[in-house]
Amino acid sequence: MLFESYSSFAKTHKDLLEEKLRVSVNKLVAPSVIKEAMLYSLEAGGKRIRPLLTFATLFSFGEDTRKGLMVAAAIEMIHTYSLIHDDLPSMDNDDLRRGKLTNHKVFGDAFAILAGDALLTYSFQLIAEIPDEYADASTKLALIKELSKASGAEGMVGGQVADIAGEEKELSLNDLEYIHVHKTGKLLECSVVSGAILAGADEEKIQLLAQFAYHLGLAFQIRDDILDLEGVEEVIGKRVGSDEVNNKGTYPSLLTLDGAKEALHQHIEQAKTQLRKTGLNISLLEEITDLIETRDH
Amino acid sequence: MLFESYSSFAKTHKDLLEEKLRVSVNKLVAPSVIKEAMLYSLEAGGKRIRPLLTFATLFSFGEDTRKGLMVAAAIEMIHTYSLIHDDLPSMDNDDLRRGKLTNHKVFGDAFAILAGDALLTYSFQLIAEIPDEYADASTKLALIKELSKASGAEGMVGGQVADIAGEEKELSLNDLEYIHVHKTGKLLECSVVSGAILAGADEEKIQLLAQFAYHLGLAFQIRDDILDLEGVEEVIGKRVGSDEVNNKGTYPSLLTLDGAKEALHQHIEQAKTQLRKTGLNISLLEEITDLIETRDH
Repeated sequence: MLFESYSSFAKTHKDLLEEKLRVSVNKLVAPSVIKEAMLYSLEAGGKRIRPLLTFATLFSFGEDTRKGLMVAAAIEMIHTYSLIHDDLPSMDNDDLRRGKLTNHKVFGDAFAILAGDALLTYSFQLIAEIPDEYADASTKLALIKELSKASGAEGMVGGQVADIAGEEKELSLNDLEYIHVHKTGKLLECSVVSGAILAGADEEKIQLLAQFAYHLGLAFQIRDDILDLEGVEEVIGKRVGSDEVNNKGTYPSLLTLDGAKEALHQHIEQAKTQLRKTGLNISLLEEITDLIETRDH
Repeated sequence: MLFESYSSFAKTHKDLLEEKLRVSVNKLVAPSVIKEAMLYSLEAGGKRIRPLLTFATLFSFGEDTRKGLMVAAAIEMIHTYSLIHDDLPSMDNDDLRRGKLTNHKVFGDAFAILAGDALLTYSFQLIAEIPDEYADASTKLALIKELSKASGAEGMVGGQVADIAGEEKELSLNDLEYIHVHKTGKLLECSVVSGAILAGADEEKIQLLAQFAYHLGLAFQIRDDILDLEGVEEVIGKRVGSDEVNNKGTYPSLLTLDGAKEALHQHIEQAKTQLRKTGLNISLLEEITDLIETRDH
């Protein structure tokens, strides 16, 4: 596929993804309340940055981006389940997300936990069901291994554990980096690497793209921390300055605001450097990288 | 392998399984508290009925039972995560399980939720990592599909949802059967079918074994309900009569105690009838079936 602009690429693929999420949940033979709870959070919007990374990576290899649809949906389900569980009263206890009531405020804690469990479980099934013309069996297994490592105890769950455990202490920059690399970075990396695996990339390219995603993930989080200080509440959808109120360790609190901006820029540059080494058609991935540096929500 | 008796088979394979669970969690590169929380519940004992079904099914085909070790560990992780989440205050709110404090009473609700998430996620990785000499890539994918369907919205999670939704109404026998077939039956069926898939069974044998497991699962649950009325507290590890106190729909409440015993016996007989049609070496599976009819905990 050719795209006139990044925004037409993003629009086309967000629509494809959202249709796939809707159809995948609707076809489940299950009590309607669990399907409603799953869809409620899947359809709550969001930047869909992870799926777009998978599609853009496939594009960079000159591959049919539709190859990535199932794994993109799977990764978005994992991301969504993690938000549902993170928002629970026993975790972050958030009532609102993106201006909407959180899952447990609508469906109750029990169904929110179960909706998260169901999304997590379904994500692996989706990958196992990728059409054979898009991936052979060993490719699907490689994707499943990537996703389980990225989202489990060695990845996202481990990062969330470290985040909670870290609430009671003064965080070092190393602690903060561990949390973000695991809590958000690993799944972003998985989004990129999954696209590369589907494209049949060699180990060298996969490593370069993983490095790209590592820096992109840290940039993403530093930008998040800066927005918490400088963002416009109506745009970011949550209270400005909430990190400081909650006494959360952030890049600006450890590096000063200017230092955090400098670190953001450094990671963006390093991300692009890795990208350029791949020799791929990186235009879309570069646009996503620029958007992450400058995003206002 | 040959076994002198069912009990030597069970002992050998429980030991193998428990070693595999321990090693698998210990080798994770993750914050120690999440590994401790995962192991706490994995090592809380239990009958290990699901793994034993997988091993006994492989035995019935004359296969090396060690082929089933990874999938048995995966299924036990899924079972364990479901217990951790079910015990949470927002679900069944249980403080004790098998005489030990429940996971969230020891680690707190947040880490209990995350330990469950990590176990669920890891189970799919374990199957993807089955050694190639035991299963080719498409066999592993078939196992992953089975497990995700059995444990997700169309299986165990769906059953738990129906169970919670049913707490406020008078259950019919159909409602009760839906709950149990999904909440416990699907994962038991998956344990048997996974053994058959690993043995390279044809569709006809898989269907017979699935039918066997369907009846076994219902028998298992009816026996549970009977034990709640007739069991010895010290042996079953929970208060006798708790279902009645909690006004839970049970087989004895719908069928009378004698009716429930008759239904139990019918399902046991039907389970054995299906087994015999397979033409396999069913001795171990028959012993498990008999134990389920007569078990006292």
